[in-house]
This record gives sequence, structure tokens and C-alpha cells, in this order.
Amino acid sequence: MYTVRVRDHFMIAHSFRGEVFGPAQKLHGATYVVDVEFRSTALDDNGIVVDIGLATDTMHRILGELNFRNLDEEPSFKGRNTTTEVLARTVFDRMAAAISNGDLGAGGRSIESMRVTLNESHVASASYEGRL
Amino acid sequence: MYTVRVRDHFMIAHSFRGEVFGPAQKLHGATYVVDVEFRSTALDDNGIVVDIGLATDTMHRILGELNFRNLDEEPSFKGRNTTTEVLARTVFDRMAAAISNGDLGAGGRSIESMRVTLNESHVASASYEGRL
Amino acid sequence: MYTVRVRDHFMIAHSFRGEVFGPAQKLHGATYVVDVEFRSTALDDNGIVVDIGLATDTMHRILGELNFRNLDEEPSFKGRNTTTEVLARTVFDRMAAAISNGDLGAGGRSIESMRVTLNESHVASASYEGRL
Amino acid sequence: MYTVRVRDHFMIAHSFRGEVFGPAQKLHGATYVVDVEFRSTALDDNGIVVDIGLATDTMHRILGELNFRNLDEEPSFKGRNTTTEVLARTVFDRMAAAISNGDLGAGGRSIESMRVTLNESHVASASYEGRL
Amino acid sequence: MYTVRVRDHFMIAHSFRGEVFGPAQKLHGATYVVDVEFRSTALDDNGIVVDIGLATDTMHRILGELNFRNLDEEPSFKGRNTTTEVLARTVFDRMAAAISNGDLGAGGRSIESMRVTLNESHVASASYEGRL
Amino acid sequence: MYTVRVRDHFMIAHSFRGEVFGPAQKLHGATYVVDVEFRSTALDDNGIVVDIGLATDTMHRILGELNFRNLDEEPSFKGRNTTTEVLARTVFDRMAAAISNGDLGAGGRSIESMRVTLNESHVASASYEGRL
Repeated sequence: MYTVRVRDHFMIAHSFRGEVFGPAQKLHGATYVVDVEFRSTALDDNGIVVDIGLATDTMHRILGELNFRNLDEEPSFKGRNTTTEVLARTVFDRMAAAISNGDLGAGGRSIESMRVTLNESHVASASYEGRL
Repeated sequence: MYTVRVRDHFMIAHSFRGEVFGPAQKLHGATYVVDVEFRSTALDDNGIVVDIGLATDTMHRILGELNFRNLDEEPSFKGRNTTTEVLARTVFDRMAAAISNGDLGAGGRSIESMRVTLNESHVASASYEGRL
Repeated sequence: MYTVRVRDHFMIAHSFRGEVFGPAQKLHGATYVVDVEFRSTALDDNGIVVDIGLATDTMHRILGELNFRNLDEEPSFKGRNTTTEVLARTVFDRMAAAISNGDLGAGGRSIESMRVTLNESHVASASYEGRL
Repeated sequence: MYTVRVRDHFMIAHSFRGEVFGPAQKLHGATYVVDVEFRSTALDDNGIVVDIGLATDTMHRILGELNFRNLDEEPSFKGRNTTTEVLARTVFDRMAAAISNGDLGAGGRSIESMRVTLNESHVASASYEGRL
Repeated sequence: MYTVRVRDHFMIAHSFRGEVFGPAQKLHGATYVVDVEFRSTALDDNGIVVDIGLATDTMHRILGELNFRNLDEEPSFKGRNTTTEVLARTVFDRMAAAISNGDLGAGGRSIESMRVTLNESHVASASYEGRL
Repeated sequence: MYTVRVRDHFMIAHSFRGEVFGPAQKLHGATYVVDVEFRSTALDDNGIVVDIGLATDTMHRILGELNFRNLDEEPSFKGRNTTTEVLARTVFDRMAAAISNGDLGAGGRSIESMRVTLNESHVASASYEGRL
């Protein structure tokens, strides 16, 4: 199995509902350093899993839809906590939709699974991984 | 599959028995920077894998039982080499017991598997992973 | 010259005023991974620059006064942009006051200079350094 | 499952054929920081996955066969793009052959799978993993 | 003193002349992960050292003039070894010229000194720092 | 000013005397990931600060004199705490002596200052810097 990983980041404000979150129930924020891993059992004729230029641009566009926002005001997250886990799933789902849409080129369709990791500090991260 | 990862560290002295260890047969020591990954296929109603506050506190307590010790004198390791692999397994087993004991709350019981990684330097680490 | 460095982090929401900030004029947020460096030309009788336990606790308290806040609503920043540079200076000034106040013990008074670095992502940081 | 990871690096020149590579079609180069992970379900009597000294030396020898080369002129890569993915597979295959050859000692034969990751910058890497 | 640091990278081929370089006399290559630090004793009215958008874009343009090249064929390096030290100085000089040219805006003219660090692997780097 | 930095590590056991150290008064240990920075205002005719091969070998030999030891039993540290600060100074002094002895070649004599940093975990380090 081959894996290609690319990294980018976004910066948001949000708050959480639920006593389990303690002081994080107040409005605060985070930088998320994001790793997206694309996996495939075979390489194409060029010797790559995916066009890394298209993958990087698509990732930047998807993170750009979250970057510099207050997620408490984003309709797509209405009624849900935007935890690191939930945001990892969100980036996964949006990248999966982009791949399905052909944004990573014909080669993108050979990607079999992905793992999206959001690093929120030097001591914590959350990931979502799954098949496409 | 969702994963949440938290990081902490501990510092110990020990020595190894066996020619394979060369100069590490002498009393020396290590800093272990530890990553514990908790995995679950679903999030709870709060949108999290586990209460990260409880997870962090429990990890700190478990590492505290090893921190600032000479492992050669710890009864629980009597007759065994405390290699990075063995210590990764030890942290895994103790965290699994804590989860079973309810230390991570009711939500901790939905954790399906864990991976524990001990980074011993900038060029080496060992991990143990398994189902709960 | 000796330097001791300790690391911790805090997570905040804020927005900036000024066209130079582009989309960062909107409410967003950041994780700041903070390094505080304490510098002294001599070590004390114990062989240390400063009691690292007191230094770590004091740093955690100072960052705790910022952590999980919306800095746009903090009176101490009224009328100012809470840029990474300004926040580095803020942490520096508060740590300098704590040292002056004796929070790092008698040994803290031998600290001659400090450098405070706030890492805001994997590609950017800001620092403030100065004499005490 | 236990994993042991060791890190080393190599520095090469190469160029790629195919429009997908854009400016990387020109002769350029890369530093690859390499992580090799060795996996086994059980530890030997010493409490280790593998003799890390032999593993490190073998890895250094394998990377040494690539280090300080222009890969465009290496017969073993004739007619193929030496992408990060292809090089990860190359290191995997050569390490697998070394294990089969006994270079990691008798204990090396209990290694069940490996993962080889080549980090090409602070924002990109590629891996190949498989069973032995 | 305030410092702002931004990171980017470039990938090149080159060879060195001189017995001191051993096998690096052959054509090989490197990824350089570059940190540029801008220093100023005062912040502007926005609370910043420099417009980080302009700084990032200018850095990317300067590194782009080196990226994906065989430096042995670049006229600007004719007769010189493109060591990590020399390349750090090159990036420094080109950034200094850009600042002088107004590429970082009027605010860029208040930058008093810079440090440019090129990380060539996980175990080595070189820097050049100086006043403007 | 040019700086070249190289990294290596060593692993030791030790204990501290003094109430300020709390539980670290017991025998424990540490991995120290060491950065040595060599500084010079000018490059030699090869375009380098120092022969990095000789610098790396000399550093490895100096750290080898500490590696896999119980520092409590080393005569050279008798009656002193081997804190991270003290060990940074020790490495500095031994490297300075090696440079003076010609171990880094004739070029080593143009090194004007050094900084030695010992990273003891992901959250703490100590350095010693000075002129030669």
C-alpha cells in the first residue's frame, strides 16, 4: 500500500456545548495543522499515487472554506460541536467529494482510502480515516 | 475510524541484559515522549472520541508511576528488559486497565483500540497497538 | 550565557483591524505553542538557571489568563490588535512582572534576559526578547 | 502488534518525465528523511522486535547506495520516475531482501511487515507498507 | 526586539568541488526547509513587524528562483560551491534587496536585521544573519 | 555571521541533590538530543564554516564519552549536579578543547563562538553559548 501525505493549516474561532468541555465552552480558537494522506495499492504510469499539485490545491481550497471563520456562525455546523474529531471528518468528507467530482484528475479515482489528521497543538491531534 | 492522540513524557534509568544491547547493558537512561492514540468508529453526542481531560490526566498518572525511577529496581519489571517495546506495552496495558476501570468515564468504554508510541530520541521509537 | 527553555500552549479567538490583515479581519482564532527562554550568565549552587518547576507553573498560570478567551473582549487589549508579536510581548511582560514579584523564587532574580516565542502554525512564529 | 521505527536520510538529484510534474521535469534534487518501521506480533527473549543496531546499520547501508547520487544515471531506475513513492518502495524492497538474507540476524525473520516513509519536506511525504 | 519567522522550502541539484566534501563532490541534491526571521525593535501601528502576506509572497518568489534547478548550471553561482552556508547568504542578500526595493511595503524598511536558516535534513542546518 | 548546526544524542542515568529537584532527586535518566552550532563571520575558500564531517565525528566522540553512563559515578562530575545546563556547558567545553586541539582541522580555528543545546523532552531544553 502506498501513501502520499500533504500538509497545510487553517485558523478558526469556535465554542463547545457540554460540561465535558469545561472552559472550552467559552468562545476561543485554534490553529489546525492538517495532514491529508491518500492511499492506493498501485501507482500510475508516472509512478505516483496522485497529482500532488492538484491534491495540494484542492486541500488548500477546502481548508480555505474554514479558514479565518467563526465556526459557531457557519450554517454547515449548526447544532453540532466543531471538535477536532468532527472537523477531521468534515475535511475527509469534503476531500472525498472533491475526488469523486474529479478535482484530483482521473488518477484521483484510484485512491482507495484517506486519513485526515488535525494537529491542534504540540500535544494533541485527532484523525478520521476511511475507505472511499 | 476516529483517532484522538495525546502526548506526555517520562524520564527513567535502566540497564539491559543480553549481548545484543552492547553498551546499553550498562546503567543509563532515557526520556520517553509518549503518544497515546484512542480509536473509535463513532463519536459520542458531544462529538468526541473520549473526554480528553480525563484521558490526559489518566495518562499523566500512569506515566507518573514510571517517571523518575530506576526501572531495574521496580518489582513489576523483575527479570525482564525494560526495552522501549516492553514499556510501550506496559503503558498500553495500564491504560487499558484504567479504561476498563472507568477512569476515562462511561465514554471510555467505546474505545475499540489503542496505539502507544514511545519516542526515545529524534531517530528511534517503538509502539504497541491492539484492540481493547 | 546559559538558557533554559520551557514549552506550553494556549488557544484563543480574536480579530484584527487594518486592511493589511485581509481575511484575518474576521473573527477567527489560533493555537499558540509558546517557548519561554530564561537566560543567565551563571548557574546557582544547584547547577540551574532557574527552578524549572516554578518556571513551568508560572508560565502555565500566565498562559491560563489568556487560554480559552476571545481576546476581542479582554479589557487589557482594548484598542489594540492582538497580533502574535503583541501577544509575545504580553507574555514577556507578565513573566517579567512575575519574576520581579518573586514567583520564580530568589533564583529568578538572577535571570538577565528572556525570549518568548509564539508558534502559530508549522510555518510562522513571532518572538519578543529583552533584558530584565 | 509491536513496531520499532528508526530514522536516517539521503540526498539525491533526479528529474521526472511527464507533464504532471511541471517544473520538476528539470534536474533538481531532494533530501529524504527516511523512517523504517518494523512490525511483529511478538517480542523475542530479549524483549525486542529486532536488533536495532543491525537494523540501523543495514538501513544506513541501503540508503548509502542511493546517497549522493544522480538517480537519472542509476541503471536500476532506468526508464522509471524516481518519485518519492517509487523510492519508498525501493527502500522497502531492499530492506526486505536484506532481512531475507539474514542481515538483521535470526530475529529479523520474525518481522511480519514494514512501513517505509520518505519525508521530502516539512509539508510532504510518501510511504510504502506491506507484509514480508 | 521583535522577530517574525516564516517558513517555506526549495529543492535543488548541485555538486561541490573540494576534497573536504567527499562523496558530495558528485552530483546530488537537497531539500532546503527555509526559515526567514525579520527583526525590529518596534511594531507599527497595526501591531506587526512586517506585512506577513508580503513577506511570505516575497520569500516564495525568491526561493522560486532557486527551486527545481541544477545550481551547477546557474550563472549566479559560477565558480562557487553552493553550500548550505552560501545559499543561506544568497537568500539573505536577495531578501535584503527586495526589502530595499520596497517589496515588503513601507513597513519593511523598519526591519533592522534578518536571520535566514536552511534546514537540509533532520540533523543539519546553516544560517546567515546580519543587519540591514 | 554564519552558523552551522549539527544534531546527535546521548542517553544517561543520574540523580540530583537539592530539594528544588523534588522527585528528580531519585536515580532516573534522560535522552539528550544535542544541537551544536558553530559560528564564524567568514566562510573558507570551500564556502563552509567548518568541515561538517569532522564536526559530526568529533561531536559523536564527545557525546560517546557520556552515552550509556550513570553520571553519578563519573569522576568528572563528582560533587556536582549533572543538570541539563551543566551538561550543555560540559559539551561546550569539550568541543572547545577539541577545536583548540585541531580536531576540526585548520578551519576549525576560525570558529568564533558556539551554542550547545540539549533538548531533554518535547517541552524543555537548556543551552550554553560563548566565545572561543
